[in-house]
Amino acid sequence: MSELDLQQYAVRTDLALEAKEEAERPGGAIPGITSQVDEQDGIRITRLAVDSEQGAAAIGKMIGHYVTLEVPELRTQDTVLQNRVTEQFAREFEAFLSRVGISPEAKVLIVGLGNWNVTPDALGPLVVENVMITRHFFELMPDKVAPGYRPVSAVAPGVLGTTGIESSEIVHGIVGQSKPDLIIAIDALASKALERVNTTIQIADTGIHPGSGIGNKRIGITREIMGVPTIAIGVPTVVYASTIVNGCIDMMARHFERHEGNTGPIMGMLPELPETERLQLVKEVLQPIGHDLLVTPKEVDQFIEDMANIIASGLNAALHGAVDPSNAGAYTH
Amino acid sequence: MSELDLQQYAVRTDLALEAKEEAERPGGAIPGITSQVDEQDGIRITRLAVDSEQGAAAIGKMIGHYVTLEVPELRTQDTVLQNRVTEQFAREFEAFLSRVGISPEAKVLIVGLGNWNVTPDALGPLVVENVMITRHFFELMPDKVAPGYRPVSAVAPGVLGTTGIESSEIVHGIVGQSKPDLIIAIDALASKALERVNTTIQIADTGIHPGSGIGNKRIGITREIMGVPTIAIGVPTVVYASTIVNGCIDMMARHFERHEGNTGPIMGMLPELPETERLQLVKEVLQPIGHDLLVTPKEVDQFIEDMANIIASGLNAALHGAVDPSNAGAYTH
Amino acid sequence: MSELDLQQYAVRTDLALEAKEEAERPGGAIPGITSQVDEQDGIRITRLAVDSEQGAAAIGKMIGHYVTLEVPELRTQDTVLQNRVTEQFAREFEAFLSRVGISPEAKVLIVGLGNWNVTPDALGPLVVENVMITRHFFELMPDKVAPGYRPVSAVAPGVLGTTGIESSEIVHGIVGQSKPDLIIAIDALASKALERVNTTIQIADTGIHPGSGIGNKRIGITREIMGVPTIAIGVPTVVYASTIVNGCIDMMARHFERHEGNTGPIMGMLPELPETERLQLVKEVLQPIGHDLLVTPKEVDQFIEDMANIIASGLNAALHGAVDPSNAGAYTH
Amino acid sequence: MSELDLQQYAVRTDLALEAKEEAERPGGAIPGITSQVDEQDGIRITRLAVDSEQGAAAIGKMIGHYVTLEVPELRTQDTVLQNRVTEQFAREFEAFLSRVGISPEAKVLIVGLGNWNVTPDALGPLVVENVMITRHFFELMPDKVAPGYRPVSAVAPGVLGTTGIESSEIVHGIVGQSKPDLIIAIDALASKALERVNTTIQIADTGIHPGSGIGNKRIGITREIMGVPTIAIGVPTVVYASTIVNGCIDMMARHFERHEGNTGPIMGMLPELPETERLQLVKEVLQPIGHDLLVTPKEVDQFIEDMANIIASGLNAALHGAVDPSNAGAYTH
Repeated sequence: MSELDLQQYAVRTDLALEAKEEAERPGGAIPGITSQVDEQDGIRITRLAVDSEQGAAAIGKMIGHYVTLEVPELRTQDTVLQNRVTEQFAREFEAFLSRVGISPEAKVLIVGLGNWNVTPDALGPLVVENVMITRHFFELMPDKVAPGYRPVSAVAPGVLGTTGIESSEIVHGIVGQSKPDLIIAIDALASKALERVNTTIQIADTGIHPGSGIGNKRIGITREIMGVPTIAIGVPTVVYASTIVNGCIDMMARHFERHEGNTGPIMGMLPELPETERLQLVKEVLQPIGHDLLVTPKEVDQFIEDMANIIASGLNAALHGAVDPSNAGAYTH
Repeated sequence: MSELDLQQYAVRTDLALEAKEEAERPGGAIPGITSQVDEQDGIRITRLAVDSEQGAAAIGKMIGHYVTLEVPELRTQDTVLQNRVTEQFAREFEAFLSRVGISPEAKVLIVGLGNWNVTPDALGPLVVENVMITRHFFELMPDKVAPGYRPVSAVAPGVLGTTGIESSEIVHGIVGQSKPDLIIAIDALASKALERVNTTIQIADTGIHPGSGIGNKRIGITREIMGVPTIAIGVPTVVYASTIVNGCIDMMARHFERHEGNTGPIMGMLPELPETERLQLVKEVLQPIGHDLLVTPKEVDQFIEDMANIIASGLNAALHGAVDPSNAGAYTH
Repeated sequence: MSELDLQQYAVRTDLALEAKEEAERPGGAIPGITSQVDEQDGIRITRLAVDSEQGAAAIGKMIGHYVTLEVPELRTQDTVLQNRVTEQFAREFEAFLSRVGISPEAKVLIVGLGNWNVTPDALGPLVVENVMITRHFFELMPDKVAPGYRPVSAVAPGVLGTTGIESSEIVHGIVGQSKPDLIIAIDALASKALERVNTTIQIADTGIHPGSGIGNKRIGITREIMGVPTIAIGVPTVVYASTIVNGCIDMMARHFERHEGNTGPIMGMLPELPETERLQLVKEVLQPIGHDLLVTPKEVDQFIEDMANIIASGLNAALHGAVDPSNAGAYTH
Repeated sequence: MSELDLQQYAVRTDLALEAKEEAERPGGAIPGITSQVDEQDGIRITRLAVDSEQGAAAIGKMIGHYVTLEVPELRTQDTVLQNRVTEQFAREFEAFLSRVGISPEAKVLIVGLGNWNVTPDALGPLVVENVMITRHFFELMPDKVAPGYRPVSAVAPGVLGTTGIESSEIVHGIVGQSKPDLIIAIDALASKALERVNTTIQIADTGIHPGSGIGNKRIGITREIMGVPTIAIGVPTVVYASTIVNGCIDMMARHFERHEGNTGPIMGMLPELPETERLQLVKEVLQPIGHDLLVTPKEVDQFIEDMANIIASGLNAALHGAVDPSNAGAYTH
């Protein structure tokens, strides 16, 4: 798989889960990819590992661990469900930290990537605004910090267009001064599927890579660049118009197969085209006239705020032993 | 055309222009519809009249006058273009007022429909925040008002879900107390076409009808209900996912016809299905799994703000002789 | 007491409690005023009644009932205290409703007075944004509303400078259309004392009177004007610079009396000047050079938000039997 | 003057101009301080230099250059005056740059200090949001940048309480990565006088010192710490309640002297107390009961926005030869 292809995948989905679904052929597991799925009370958790270069090439994602929480009902804005997702995310994140070898005392820098002024890109800054900040207490009055807390700091570095500086460079500078043991980077992602928008959270130990996220970073935020382990938390908040169309053609084909036994005369050759080729076709049609926009559901303001609260409360519970997952929300604003 | 069908149209497009395009058959004008198109420097103005019940039934829109400004390049956020559109909109709106018989002294109430907290629905409230308010000067110190102004008031009545009261009822109550001669109602609309989102302004003397706009009003704001002439200004800010898919299938068909001479084996019968039938098919596929969302481009925050400024500045110039269209922006915040 | 004097009082304090303190002379109760004070765990509740025209004239406040909650520690932003105040306010408000004869089924319109864009004046709109809205459920699907709720609607009518229409007229129009049994009007007030800013809530059955509040209404919102009982909830959010100075001179005098036995040579005749005369002197000095501004603590943004949450949650618990005062906050956004 | 005293001054006023006024005795210039005042059309410009340690000790301010623009009428929100102030500030800032030896090609990092969520402290972040950002064009496509521009980047590092990291450390890290030739730090200040709030701009080549500004930095942003020249731009947005009282006592004394020839019996010894002693007295009275708050005029939201626009537009004109001071506002959002 050439670099160009990788880039194309990156543009279409930032979710390892979707990249795997796309690469899968019926009946066949992908060498170098292991995955396990748990589903309970409307929350589906997929733990996926890309174990080898072969697996990485097959799905266009870096070697590493990826955990995905999918909660289709999140869009109903049910606060009881939101609290359950917060607790589950906290447990999953805490387990992820210990699985990738982060100590419970590790000093954490939370980085909220994205642009305050573009709602679907504001997830990161919103999380930063809502997490508990404790590092300054450890610095200024270490004797007075209650047990069960660790030093947590947080910054929202802005985006290249509004600062003139790569967010990666800004984070690098802050890491050099504040010396965290772990970076947790929050970012808004692009998905292939409208139903995953604002209903899915991905945790990955691969950091943030160039070209990923809505803002299309040009330099990554990774362990290699920053010198400390970097965990990425992402939520898809946008979809390309072309992937909506492509996905719908698929669904139409399945619809006709179910109802008529075949798609034959109605849909012509469309269902048989390989997915990437068909997507290419759709893009060829949409792009020249400016239709291949990144789109987002109209209720994006409330969805983003809910997601930021879930992640901030979940991080508070996962990072501080003294914070109880069941009422972590009380610590956010 | 039954009432149900009308409703379906209303859900899909609030633009008379699109409704007409959809109803048109190759080569044939629609009886009861007259239209005239002017195009200059990237601004296309369509003046459309629905003259008879027959025309109204054909396109699913009320008898009345509709003026549409289409400016595809607005999305580039070029401030010079924005100023030109402001001037053009002001001229067009002033002409519209005199065409529908509104006197230059008419007291105006501007009504910004929609929900502050949902960005694509916030156009109306944003316009209200930016227009010049003068009515209270006429009420409190009539002798001191300079010539060239008229009494203008403005309210944003909120939406049913956040007030518990129909916006139409709120406006009715305010009209009864403040006694304007003309209502100008601003609303965010749904369009059929992603490229019209945030690039199109519609002026209509039909008022706001039940089921129209993003918020799906249940009671209208019309001359009949309010007792004073009511002009609606609308900007499409959202599209249904299903109409994106449907529109793309059309474009694919045209693409194949251009390049291959026919769409035959590739697209099967899809291109031949009547538009409404195909749309129905797409909706059947998308709705059960919650994919048929109203979507909006990710940059909606900035687009909406730009559009609100254009409309507010344009109204300031159109409503007050003393405000020069070329620098009307100076009067907005 | 002439109307002018009344106006002066109104400008300086909107709190009946302060007006009474000001009018009191050592040792003497004021005829026509009865009051009772309860204090518990940092919350002081004063229930004051102006029973006669004589009492009204003495303190410059209308005949009626006034309940004041004072919580000096609210400024520490302790969430446990905030919850206690919410519960206490809910209980007190519910008792107030039954004392003034409002039935538990009365349909309520909540009116959030003030200006969104001026933080210390945004209390009313913020409360409106956070109360539970139920009226539309009763209108649209009365059979499906669970027991324990009543119809509540809410509007933020804006201010004269941004709408061109008196807020009183807007409310009047909405009342005519939506026909509530009770109006609850929320407003930001001016206080005499910096320590009462954002730490005090006043409930009164007198409605909102001309000249009161930050926005200095010109027409009131009262039972007489609206035709339905009107309860006002106010929170002081600003103080005149001149009242800060005047209050401090008083405190200095008491300071010297305590420490030196008298204020004599140090403070001259200042302590002996009658309060209104001294205030007049301070205003004479400050006003010509534009110093007699309404000021507010710099943390006003957070204070106002906390207060809006307390009032909104308290109203939810007081108005709906099904909402438990101890977790009423869960119903606000 | 001891360090403690210096600190006290810093708490009370961040303006060199006010510190000088306070230190002055009738008839006597202060050794080590030179100043020059220009006044034209309502804009008063004071160019003050602290030339020696003696001067620094006398007024409690660092050796360096201070330029102050005072425009009492700014509070009237007259847009014509705002444009004049923008032009004047741009000219003055450009002259300041060349006076302190900054080359026209110097790469600039603009640092907006303060807290987004506390309106009177949000000046810095608001300026950052409104300045032209050009550095990334120079980095990514240097050949395409039109002449007349220089590389400008901008960051808002937040405050210790919301990030857990000293803003000075964050800026230090970013400077290390992005390597500007000049830092321009914008900060909200405390003033002694209510009339200077939001009507005054101070430019200084001393950088930002510990204890200064609303946020009370603990580490400075200075040439010594950052390794590059650092210019501070400050606007007073708050005043201590105690300084309002103290200032008013002064004004009362002058008032009686003017009208009665003396202050004798009326004000006692108050006018004769040395200013610092009297201030101490006022603080003793106010602080125990929590009255000595930092206060701000109630219209702070609009004032801060106007000031941020003036500074951002002025910086755009001063930093880029291609931007015309007379329409620099067109480049801000």
